Amino acid sequence: MMDSADMESGSYHDRLRTFPNMRAKPYTPLVFRILLGINVRVLFLLLLLSFGAIFYMGAKTSPIIVLVISICILSFFVAIYLMKWVLAKDEGPPEMVQIADAIRDGAEGFIRTQYGTISKMAMLLALVILCIYLFRSTTPQQEASGVGRTTTAYITVASFLLGALCSGFAGYVGMWVSVRANVRVSSAARRSSREALQIATRAGGLSALIVVGMAVIGIAVLYATFYVWLGVDTPGSMKVTDFGYGFGASFVALFAQLGGGIYTKAADVGADLVGKVEQGIPEDDPRNPAVIADLVGDNVGDCAARGADLFESIAAEIISAMILGGTMAQRCKIEDPSGFILFPLVVHSFDLVVSSVGIFSIRGTRESGVLSPIEDPMAILQKGYSVTIVLAVLAFGLSTRWLLYVEQAPSAWFNFALCGLIGIITAYIFVWITKYYTDYKHEPVRTLALSSSTGHGTNIIAGVSLGLESTGLPVLVISAAIVSAYWLGQTAGLIDETGNPTGGLFGTAVATMGMLSTAAYILTMDMFGPIADNAGGIVEMSQQPESVREITDVLDAVGNTTKATTKGFAIGSAALASFLLFSAYMDEVSSFSREPFKQVDIAIPEVFVGGLLGAMLIFVFSAWACAAVGRTAQEVVNEVRRQFIERPGIMDYKEKPDYARCVAIVASASLREMIKPGALAIISPIVVGFAFRILGYYTGQPLLGAKVVAAFLMFATVSGILMALFLNTAGGAWDNAKKYIETGALGGKGSDAHKAAITGDTVGDPFKDTAGPSLHVLIKMLSTITLVMAPIFL
Amino acid sequence: MMDSADMESGSYHDRLRTFPNMRAKPYTPLVFRILLGINVRVLFLLLLLSFGAIFYMGAKTSPIIVLVISICILSFFVAIYLMKWVLAKDEGPPEMVQIADAIRDGAEGFIRTQYGTISKMAMLLALVILCIYLFRSTTPQQEASGVGRTTTAYITVASFLLGALCSGFAGYVGMWVSVRANVRVSSAARRSSREALQIATRAGGLSALIVVGMAVIGIAVLYATFYVWLGVDTPGSMKVTDFGYGFGASFVALFAQLGGGIYTKAADVGADLVGKVEQGIPEDDPRNPAVIADLVGDNVGDCAARGADLFESIAAEIISAMILGGTMAQRCKIEDPSGFILFPLVVHSFDLVVSSVGIFSIRGTRESGVLSPIEDPMAILQKGYSVTIVLAVLAFGLSTRWLLYVEQAPSAWFNFALCGLIGIITAYIFVWITKYYTDYKHEPVRTLALSSSTGHGTNIIAGVSLGLESTGLPVLVISAAIVSAYWLGQTAGLIDETGNPTGGLFGTAVATMGMLSTAAYILTMDMFGPIADNAGGIVEMSQQPESVREITDVLDAVGNTTKATTKGFAIGSAALASFLLFSAYMDEVSSFSREPFKQVDIAIPEVFVGGLLGAMLIFVFSAWACAAVGRTAQEVVNEVRRQFIERPGIMDYKEKPDYARCVAIVASASLREMIKPGALAIISPIVVGFAFRILGYYTGQPLLGAKVVAAFLMFATVSGILMALFLNTAGGAWDNAKKYIETGALGGKGSDAHKAAITGDTVGDPFKDTAGPSLHVLIKMLSTITLVMAPIFL
Repeated sequence: MMDSADMESGSYHDRLRTFPNMRAKPYTPLVFRILLGINVRVLFLLLLLSFGAIFYMGAKTSPIIVLVISICILSFFVAIYLMKWVLAKDEGPPEMVQIADAIRDGAEGFIRTQYGTISKMAMLLALVILCIYLFRSTTPQQEASGVGRTTTAYITVASFLLGALCSGFAGYVGMWVSVRANVRVSSAARRSSREALQIATRAGGLSALIVVGMAVIGIAVLYATFYVWLGVDTPGSMKVTDFGYGFGASFVALFAQLGGGIYTKAADVGADLVGKVEQGIPEDDPRNPAVIADLVGDNVGDCAARGADLFESIAAEIISAMILGGTMAQRCKIEDPSGFILFPLVVHSFDLVVSSVGIFSIRGTRESGVLSPIEDPMAILQKGYSVTIVLAVLAFGLSTRWLLYVEQAPSAWFNFALCGLIGIITAYIFVWITKYYTDYKHEPVRTLALSSSTGHGTNIIAGVSLGLESTGLPVLVISAAIVSAYWLGQTAGLIDETGNPTGGLFGTAVATMGMLSTAAYILTMDMFGPIADNAGGIVEMSQQPESVREITDVLDAVGNTTKATTKGFAIGSAALASFLLFSAYMDEVSSFSREPFKQVDIAIPEVFVGGLLGAMLIFVFSAWACAAVGRTAQEVVNEVRRQFIERPGIMDYKEKPDYARCVAIVASASLREMIKPGALAIISPIVVGFAFRILGYYTGQPLLGAKVVAAFLMFATVSGILMALFLNTAGGAWDNAKKYIETGALGGKGSDAHKAAITGDTVGDPFKDTAGPSLHVLIKMLSTITLVMAPIFL
Repeated sequence: MMDSADMESGSYHDRLRTFPNMRAKPYTPLVFRILLGINVRVLFLLLLLSFGAIFYMGAKTSPIIVLVISICILSFFVAIYLMKWVLAKDEGPPEMVQIADAIRDGAEGFIRTQYGTISKMAMLLALVILCIYLFRSTTPQQEASGVGRTTTAYITVASFLLGALCSGFAGYVGMWVSVRANVRVSSAARRSSREALQIATRAGGLSALIVVGMAVIGIAVLYATFYVWLGVDTPGSMKVTDFGYGFGASFVALFAQLGGGIYTKAADVGADLVGKVEQGIPEDDPRNPAVIADLVGDNVGDCAARGADLFESIAAEIISAMILGGTMAQRCKIEDPSGFILFPLVVHSFDLVVSSVGIFSIRGTRESGVLSPIEDPMAILQKGYSVTIVLAVLAFGLSTRWLLYVEQAPSAWFNFALCGLIGIITAYIFVWITKYYTDYKHEPVRTLALSSSTGHGTNIIAGVSLGLESTGLPVLVISAAIVSAYWLGQTAGLIDETGNPTGGLFGTAVATMGMLSTAAYILTMDMFGPIADNAGGIVEMSQQPESVREITDVLDAVGNTTKATTKGFAIGSAALASFLLFSAYMDEVSSFSREPFKQVDIAIPEVFVGGLLGAMLIFVFSAWACAAVGRTAQEVVNEVRRQFIERPGIMDYKEKPDYARCVAIVASASLREMIKPGALAIISPIVVGFAFRILGYYTGQPLLGAKVVAAFLMFATVSGILMALFLNTAGGAWDNAKKYIETGALGGKGSDAHKAAITGDTVGDPFKDTAGPSLHVLIKMLSTITLVMAPIFL
């Protein structure tokens, strides 16, 4: 047994401090401390004040805004309740607390350093945007709105920074909750599996409500501000400003995902390669010097990054749908366009309500005592999802009838409700397909496991084929969804001035909203994963009895499944939304150039080349993301090997490994490694657009830069969707093929098949947790960066 | 030592016959026997007769055709000289002959069965095409030419079948030569490395001259026939018929590459997994039951498939360039368009001449006796390439001046010569980039080898990243080539009736021709690879002394490099040609629909979905190709394991392995496995086009099917280029990382790093020799199938 007193020794904490930003004391930001310290009366006062402000803004704009903001604020109170509930749970025995403290210190230290780097880059980019917008020409809509060029420039930069801030905060919340919930879940696992499940779910729900609520309230306030303060009421006028918000959010999300993804997988791969493969010690064993870094990684990679990612998804989707709805309503001469504009905000407010119901439907069974019989937690989470989805369908139907009913086209709302249904069904099918390809209950993973029995090589070949093949069904589903939603929208009966049906694009927007209408619950399930994973690690490291480990192992396995399905969901919504964002880009180019820009003709050689370059970006970006993990992991491997050699007592629990050194190495390496792929993603569309603009100028082709960038964007999106599906599914399948063998199949743990399966799992790690999720974010970031940078392509 | 007498025993040959189509006697098709049996006087008579026919046709059409056909016929005589020269070499001792016979039987048996399957499918497809063309409407050009609908239908089907036949024959020639040259190279290796090199090069050159010559003469005769018999002189009128030829060729090439690629790599992976990894015996060891199957695979996978592939490339490129040149000349009112039409044929005839010079520049040094000191064969081949490339540049320059000089634009020829130079330079850079990423003299492969030292997992991650990253530079080069060649063409001074410059597309066509202007020499180097590989296998199996093995090892290593560079070359030319073939497709749609069809607008949702589906095809096709290898390899593994268990004497050379059973298993499995990916490639564009045509009909969108197919084609091409680059480079790099470690680096043979590198090599095998090369063919097949099937999309 490990001597737990040793962990408290001064030398341990001294070494822990070798990581520059690492503190022994938990760090709680001021805003959290204030929120936690507030007493009920002050809260009540705040509540009243907020409502006062809302009613002022609401009276000035629309009662719908009042409703949306009220729901968001209410959901924040729910989140505060959940926070207090989770934090009130006990943290267990001191050995657990110590490990949890080390994880928290590592995670918070890394996030702070990372955010420092990101904010420097964001400031630089803000300056670039400011310069561009101070010298750009204004659009007719802007002139109509009466907002000057300088004001627009400052507002755009401000909204970029606001987006970046909110996205960063969303990520921070995820991590903050997760590093506090993990130990409480471990502690609860000693008593009851149900309670552990409940804590993990509620902690996940807390982050989810804050992330989604922040996205909604941010845009609602932005909208109300423009409406009230600047008197802007044409929907297109503030488009770039809005997308500045989206770009800020996706910019932070990209680097958060890259840095976090590299961190988590480098630590994981490095720890496994020496620990599991070379030394033959189990996962999360306290003797492994990289084990704390691995546990830190779950928080910074999965929680923080996914929070920022989902925030960005929802924000970008709401903004583009609002603008689309507004311009469409205007073109169709609908008297009160506010229903079409505010519809996305309402849908997502209802998401907060129905998802809260779903989260609270997962109850801790009070009657069960210590060590209740283990239930299937997946079934419980699924039940909650079913509750949420049924309510979401109802809420969606009601919202469409309420907001999208127009006299010109009395059945339009019903068509749009069907579009929403298409979105919800698409989400459901996506989740199902992901499960089919990554769950070992089904054929593909079993075949993959079988191929491990003929060696490392056949395992990898089979995994790569599985991943590549798994792109087929999702693409068919998304194709069907895009075409049918567009068609339903087009036939909804809305007709523009020239008599053409015009609702098609809005139909796909509504489908995207449908898909994201249970986002908060999906995010809850996703956040559940790393918390459960961490809890398992803490249980393992604090050497708890077998029965406790069994509980956390089951939760961890469920977490893997939910993480995989969320990725399917994220990529599906990115694919649906992509089409929306293209059209926003094309509209924007059209307003700036004051020429119609409706077509992207890939029969023009330069445009085709733009497409080729866009697809190439995806390949090179994925390469650099994977290579970054490989390089960082090698540093970890060398460090862990060094420690095992220099401290031979580690293996007999006689010497303590230097956890902090591994944490420090991974942190600094992943911050360094995230720059190269991130910079590629930001710079390449700008360079391509600018270069072809120059070329177009000299060869007499107007708008060439903008056209090439459009093709760049579209080909990058298509390749990115496929590549992300490939990477995520292959990674998930390898992971579960290994787990399947560990259940005793094909020789079980320690067999040759198991060794081959571990190789597959190692390869899959950077695929599914670094490159794959970074690609989701990249796709969305490209849509927003091309919008914001459009002036330099013209 | 293996008992060689045992190999002659009846039981061995009995078992060998278990493969249904396998014969103990070498099978030589009638046409070869006749050619070989002809005496000189008859040859002379034939020569005279051929010239008579040519002069008749030439007088009726153009003197240029006379020149082209003469050069082709001359090059066939050169090929016959080379064949006689190679076959006159000795086959070495009986133990070599026996092994070579077994390889030849296996290869010929497989090819015959494979061609049987392919021809059945081709007949079926021919019937489909016939039905389509009997019911399709005619184009204005066809009406102008006065050829009726029924005649067109029959001619189209006939040219499809002719293309299929020629492509099949080209593949057969490659295999036929290779299975005869291999043993002669092994035998010569006992005497001198230089002589072995010379035999391998001349054998490769023989196939190359026949393949390229056939492509050129086939089209020249087709053109002359139409011109003379049907009196057709407008260049566009026979377009579909011409592309029928291209489609037939690419159809056969696709299945030849798929079947052969699966065969070769399944045998290789299966043999290695049990032999090298489990039993620890060297490659090509006679104790391995799958060793003959592995050697057969080199011939059917590399020689036969690459022959069909290159034939198809050249044929499709010549056809599209001829049509393009013709229509352009017509539009620009150039008096004599024949220069523009026949330019591609002339360029490729000169290719035959300059490449022959290159091939003959590699001489066997007469003075060297037995066992000459080993020279660097790569340097010798490179010298030959330099000779060829210098002559090609000269020939290209002269051809442009001769054929493309027009009075309207006196400097146009110079611009086009520069386009050709761009093509030649692009080819050179592509070869260089491939070498940079796959040769262990450079950084990337060394880093990959280093990552093997931390295990199987990091090796795979590093290899995948390397492959993905290696797409970057080639895409930049190809982008620059497309844009600059288009621009040079556009500014050449050719102006159409409406006063617009019009030479851009022809510029890219000329660049493609430039790239392919040394195709025969490149193909020679490529064919060299599998012959040398086989020779090495025969030397190893017949247990020759170390000094002989050293010679064949060096030749084999050179062969690996040339194979890798040819793949780079093939994908580069496919990328350049792709743009040409798009425009041919769009012209075709435009003529049928009698509407302008100049744009492919991916901002239309259905068109975007078409692109998504096209990119998806590439992913799923690659998946199925890799999975086919994995599955077939597993069958081999099981069989080899079974033999080692049931015949324990094999390891001590006391019992003979049952080679024929492995050959039979691989052959039947690869024929079965090639159907699924092949059918996907053929059917999916047809289904997509037809489905969206129906959808377009019901939603009132004219030409929707054709537009969607255009996007399908373009996205598939872009993704295909990138995926093929990724697969080829990753595979080549893994192979050479292993070879680098085998030179003694990082612990050398038997170390853990070496084991990890073998895993990488195994994974790379189906990447670089099955999925990658099949993708080249797939891309080109898609261009031709969409053209031929265009009537059902309208």
